[in-house]
Order: sequence, then C-alpha cells, then structure tokens
Amino acid sequence: LNMSNPVVTLTTDFGEDSPYVAAMKGVILATNAAARIVDLSHQTPAQDVRYASFFLAASLPYFPAGTLHVVVVDPGVGSERAILYAELGGQRILAPDNGCLTGLVSRVGEPTVVRKLEETGYWRPTVSSTFHGRDIFAPVAGHLSLGLDPARLGPLFANWLRLEEAQPIRGAMESHGEVVFVDHFGNLISNIPADAVSQPPQWLQVGKRRLKRFAWVRSYAEARPGDLVVLVSSENRMEVAVAQGNAAKRLRAGVGTSISVGFDA
Amino acid sequence: LNMSNPVVTLTTDFGEDSPYVAAMKGVILATNAAARIVDLSHQTPAQDVRYASFFLAASLPYFPAGTLHVVVVDPGVGSERAILYAELGGQRILAPDNGCLTGLVSRVGEPTVVRKLEETGYWRPTVSSTFHGRDIFAPVAGHLSLGLDPARLGPLFANWLRLEEAQPIRGAMESHGEVVFVDHFGNLISNIPADAVSQPPQWLQVGKRRLKRFAWVRSYAEARPGDLVVLVSSENRMEVAVAQGNAAKRLRAGVGTSISVGFDA
Amino acid sequence: LNMSNPVVTLTTDFGEDSPYVAAMKGVILATNAAARIVDLSHQTPAQDVRYASFFLAASLPYFPAGTLHVVVVDPGVGSERAILYAELGGQRILAPDNGCLTGLVSRVGEPTVVRKLEETGYWRPTVSSTFHGRDIFAPVAGHLSLGLDPARLGPLFANWLRLEEAQPIRGAMESHGEVVFVDHFGNLISNIPADAVSQPPQWLQVGKRRLKRFAWVRSYAEARPGDLVVLVSSENRMEVAVAQGNAAKRLRAGVGTSISVGFDA
Repeated sequence: LNMSNPVVTLTTDFGEDSPYVAAMKGVILATNAAARIVDLSHQTPAQDVRYASFFLAASLPYFPAGTLHVVVVDPGVGSERAILYAELGGQRILAPDNGCLTGLVSRVGEPTVVRKLEETGYWRPTVSSTFHGRDIFAPVAGHLSLGLDPARLGPLFANWLRLEEAQPIRGAMESHGEVVFVDHFGNLISNIPADAVSQPPQWLQVGKRRLKRFAWVRSYAEARPGDLVVLVSSENRMEVAVAQGNAAKRLRAGVGTSISVGFDA
Repeated sequence: LNMSNPVVTLTTDFGEDSPYVAAMKGVILATNAAARIVDLSHQTPAQDVRYASFFLAASLPYFPAGTLHVVVVDPGVGSERAILYAELGGQRILAPDNGCLTGLVSRVGEPTVVRKLEETGYWRPTVSSTFHGRDIFAPVAGHLSLGLDPARLGPLFANWLRLEEAQPIRGAMESHGEVVFVDHFGNLISNIPADAVSQPPQWLQVGKRRLKRFAWVRSYAEARPGDLVVLVSSENRMEVAVAQGNAAKRLRAGVGTSISVGFDA
Repeated sequence: LNMSNPVVTLTTDFGEDSPYVAAMKGVILATNAAARIVDLSHQTPAQDVRYASFFLAASLPYFPAGTLHVVVVDPGVGSERAILYAELGGQRILAPDNGCLTGLVSRVGEPTVVRKLEETGYWRPTVSSTFHGRDIFAPVAGHLSLGLDPARLGPLFANWLRLEEAQPIRGAMESHGEVVFVDHFGNLISNIPADAVSQPPQWLQVGKRRLKRFAWVRSYAEARPGDLVVLVSSENRMEVAVAQGNAAKRLRAGVGTSISVGFDA
C-alpha cells in the first residue's frame, strides 16, 4: 500500500453542528499540516454501527489504494473496546472495534492486517474518556498520513468483532430478505441480490403489505412520479423506491423490515 | 480557460448522511489523486432542479475562471436525458440536462461550449442506471481535472434544456413577481430587481396578505428583532425578511408565492 | 505566527443547503487559488453568537499555530458593528465583533492583536449590506492566506465586545451552574468544573427536577443504554448525559437551564 497518501477521510456521527468534528480536524492538521481532509459524513445516525457498516461498504471501495479512513461511530468510547487499524481491499482504516467493518469485509474480503492501538506515544498526552476521536484517532491518523509504519501502533489483533448479517433466502419462485439501508431519498435497499429481479416479479411484499401494483424498471425515470418501483440498486441489490417520492414513508418501512419478491406459480 | 485547475466542486441532493457523496469522492480521487474536492452542498432539496438553478447562479460566478463544478441533482438519472459539459461565465460544469443551468445563464450569459457526454471510455466500466454521479460524472470530472480536452468527451450539443423563468412586471407605481428562493434563515428572495425598492415602498403583498407594517432597511440589523423588513438581497433582488426571525414561516410563503410591492397614488 | 499557512477554516450559520457558503468559497479561491478550505460547521444555529462562542473555544485550540479561521455568525451584518482580525492562542481569526470570541478568550487568554477591518482595498469592490461573508470576510481571508501583513487591514482596536458568561458557584457540599452547550447527541455540557464531580455526587438538579437516580461514570459505555449519567466532558466540565440516548430531550433542558450537583450532609 502507498503509505504516503496525504488524504484522510472522516466518517462520524458527531453531526454537522458539532465542535467535535472541528477539533478532530485541528488535531490532524496539527500533526500533519499537509494532510488533506475529506469529509465523508458526519450525519451518520447517532451510535448506529449498522448504518456505518453499510455506509463504509458502499463508499470506501471507490477510493484509491492506500487512502486512510477514520471512522468514529463509537457508542463504546471509553470502554475496553479496542481501536483498530485495519487494511482491507486496499484501504486503510482506523475504527472502533464494534463491527462497523462487517459490511466492507463482506464486500472486499478479509483484512490483510488488523492491529489494536496500544502505543500511547502517538496519542494526545491526555485522553478524555468521552472523546477518543480527538485524543486517539485524530493524532494517530495524522502520524499515519506522515508515513508512520502501522506496526508501531500496536500488536496484531485477531478477535475483532463482526455484526451478524441477515442472509437472504433465494428460491426458484421467490426470494426473502430485509431492508438493510434507507437512503436520503427514502429508497429501500435490500440484501436480496440483483439477479432475483432480473425478470419482472409478479408480487412484492414489504413488511406485512403484499403489493401487486408496482413497476419493474431500470431507473426511476422510467416510472411516473409517485409510482412504486422495483429496480436494481447502485450496489447490485434489489431496491424498492417511489419515483420522485419516498418509499420508506409510503410503505412505513425501515432497516430490518422484511422484503420478499416472487413469481406466481 | 485554465484547464489544469485541480479544484472540483460538488453540488448534489444526496444528503449529508449519504454514502453516495463519499463514493463520488472516492472515484474522483481514484482518477486524479491530486484533485482538490470542495463541497458546495449536498443538501439541495431532493430532485429540486429549480433550487439547483438558483443555487448555481448565486455561487458559481464567484469562483476563479476554469474551476470545474460537478452538479448531480438528477431526477432523470438512467433515462435518455443527456449529461452536459458546459463552459459559461468562465466556469466549467458537468450537469444533467434538466434545466439546472438556467439561472446561471440568465446571470452570466450564454455558454460558449456545450457538449453531450458520449465517450464511454472516460466512464466507469459498468454504469449503474441509478447512480451516474459515481459512474459517469465522477470519473469524467477526474479526467477533466487532469487536463483532458473536453472535446474528447462527446459532440457539441445545441438543444439543451432551459427552465421557464417567471418574469417580474415593473410598473411606475408597483412591481409584481414571485419568491424564487427561500434561504436557510427563511428570507424570501424575489425575482423583482432591486431598483423597485430604491425608495421605501408603501405596501407589500406576499401571497394574499397585504402588508402595511414593515420597515424598509439596508440591513437586518437596522430593524428590531422580529420586525418584518423589505431590503435588497445580496444578489440585487428585492428580499422580504424578518430580523432575526423566519419570514417564510411567518408569512407561510415559499418558492412560487407571489410578491408585489408598490406606492399609493 | 506562521503567516503562510494555506488553511482557511469556515464556521458559519448559513446552513448546509446554502449558496452563501459556496459563494464564500468561490471568493476565497478566486483570491488565493492555493487556499485549502476546511469546513468546521455551517450548521451553527442561526444568529446564535453564544453557540459560536462555545464552538470556537472547543475546537480552535486544537489547530496548528497560525491557522486562519473565518467565523460568520453575524446578526449585525450591515450595521456599524466592527469586523475583527484577532490573534489569540496562536490562532488567527476573522469574526464579527459580537462576542463570539468570548469563550476562546476564557480558554486561551487575551488576544495579542485585535484589529478592526477598515482598508476597503482588500474587500470586494461592491459590498452588499447583507452579505459581508462574501464581500469582506472571504476576500480578506484570501489575502491573509497569501501572506498579507494583518497591519494592512486596519487599526488596532481595543473595545471589542465580550459576552457576559455566567460563573458557576463552587461550594464544599454543592456546586451550581448552568448548561452552556447541548451537543448533537443531546448531552448537556455545564460550566461547572470537572473537580466538582471528582467524587460520586449524591444528588443532581437540572432545572426544577431533583434527580437521585443517576450513575457516576467515566464514559457512556459504563452505563446501560438509557441510564442517566454524570461524567466529565471532553472539555473538562461536568456533563449530564443519557447513555445512547438524549439527555436534553429526556430532561427538557437546554442552554441556560440551571444545573446543581452535591453531597448530602
């Protein structure tokens, strides 16, 4: 991996209104004045590790190899949970050990390196037990962006956490899964692979609602505004949307809502 | 135009919580590691082309000549709508052909170049029909920021779309127009030119409400908090505001609400 | 101070959906194409100078010496209020003279330099009376990031504004203060110094509510989700939180709500 990439991306649940993001940026730049900070999101829902897992899987693989990503969605801050340095799919990540890498691992494969941060010499001298983002993640990111050998951060670590991920069921006539992400437009992204809807399905079930009136389309624009549609998401999963509308609101669905799709006999 | 400007600005309706913005940044940096990404907004209201049109007119003219702007407010993604490369007012823009350049054209004049993106060699190898931002706009932006000759992107294109823009009516005693933008503070920006209020008007009508109690000021601070004011916007249009308050909420007005202002005989 | 630091940070209340932020970025880059713009926040509550004061105190001290910070939370735009260039705690700041530096001064000490912007030669040729961010702050920031001697901006200025800050009362058996900040998670940050809760307190009062059931912890993760906790904030103040929940909503508290904590006799 290219260890001298000056880009440091940030993904947090601190909120756009927060001084916490700003403090982290200050520490990164104080450690490496040449770091190029790129915001991915600070609006991850608070403490929502599952959201972070989906978010990272859907975005990090597109970055150039060697990019350093700092992820602070961290309900366990201050506890004994580890902080990880991981290399996977060509990306380099600092993240709390809470399962937020699960989606990315499913997508790009097992990490080639996982270390547990232990070397306090790269941390701020005083570490707040409520703000490791500023006092551990940010200075370590600054040092890594300067080219620090990750082996200096701490020992290899095998027992990092994975979230359980619901597995979809694919049958000849029907497929069953659940909503794994609701995007900003209210589109429902499922865990059902795209090939389940390579033909136009005859029925769709979202939660308890059996739906027969929907269009099978390649893009939102093929439907009239307000129409319910089934299509393939940009991450190659079955997606349920409302053209120029909000499917999550229309169908009162959210992450975890069951989705099935199928063909009549 | 300076074609080696490494700045790439982003304007989308993807939302601050979205992995889609992050994926686009990844692709841009994967294409040109030296690109300097500048976020303009990712909170443009969903699919609101008219909002985007105002937004671009009020911001792009301030950038240095040759800056590359990527605009993805794109309800027609995946349809036959074209994707444009345009040069106008010294700026370079990648945008869907849906009228979002209308306001900017009114402000800075006709484009000197408009091309339709057709050369798939600069796109990602697989193009999702729901995410052209990641698969077409981002890699093309990366290539342009590296200095690619825009003539390579596709042919010149004449029939690009314009939104119809309501024209204000200026009379000797009164002027009529409408709200064209509501800013974050709830200030109502109209399409009535500033000179209509170069003297203190005697009445103001917003929607169906005839208002006689308002102050005519140069700045919000000249009024007491809570006072309704008429003033000149930073883009030289008549504006209606509430000092340290929210005029849109107070007057229940939004984009398209009629505004008139005038003098008694 | 290092005057050739190309980083320019931005803190405004313009909102993430606003063309005003974008226009400022355009002007900064038009003045200094090499400026590296770093967003701190554009979601500061509208015209909330007290929020800005806390925000700056909690974030600017972490930046490397010589960083230039532009702050536009400015209810007095267009009035006779001064615009300040200040150097304090190693940071360089452009801000309206409305007290927004108060928290930072309390934290890092008195400014070594305060000037009042008067030299219009560094401003945009036409200055809107509603948008000094674009027409004064941004071009001046661009010039400063190019290395302009701040003495050129205007004369030294002594009578800049400070907000009154409520002082906490520390007794042997109890301490009294108030909420000075509510963060994105709904955590209540008080102005009571951390040492008031170096031992587990026996009671807590927030507004009119006397609370006996709460945990005294070092970090949120020590409590069960939903538990009310008292702990030390990342800025070394007493904080009241709900583990993985929202204390502001639970206790209906906000900035200015009184907080007391103490021990039974």
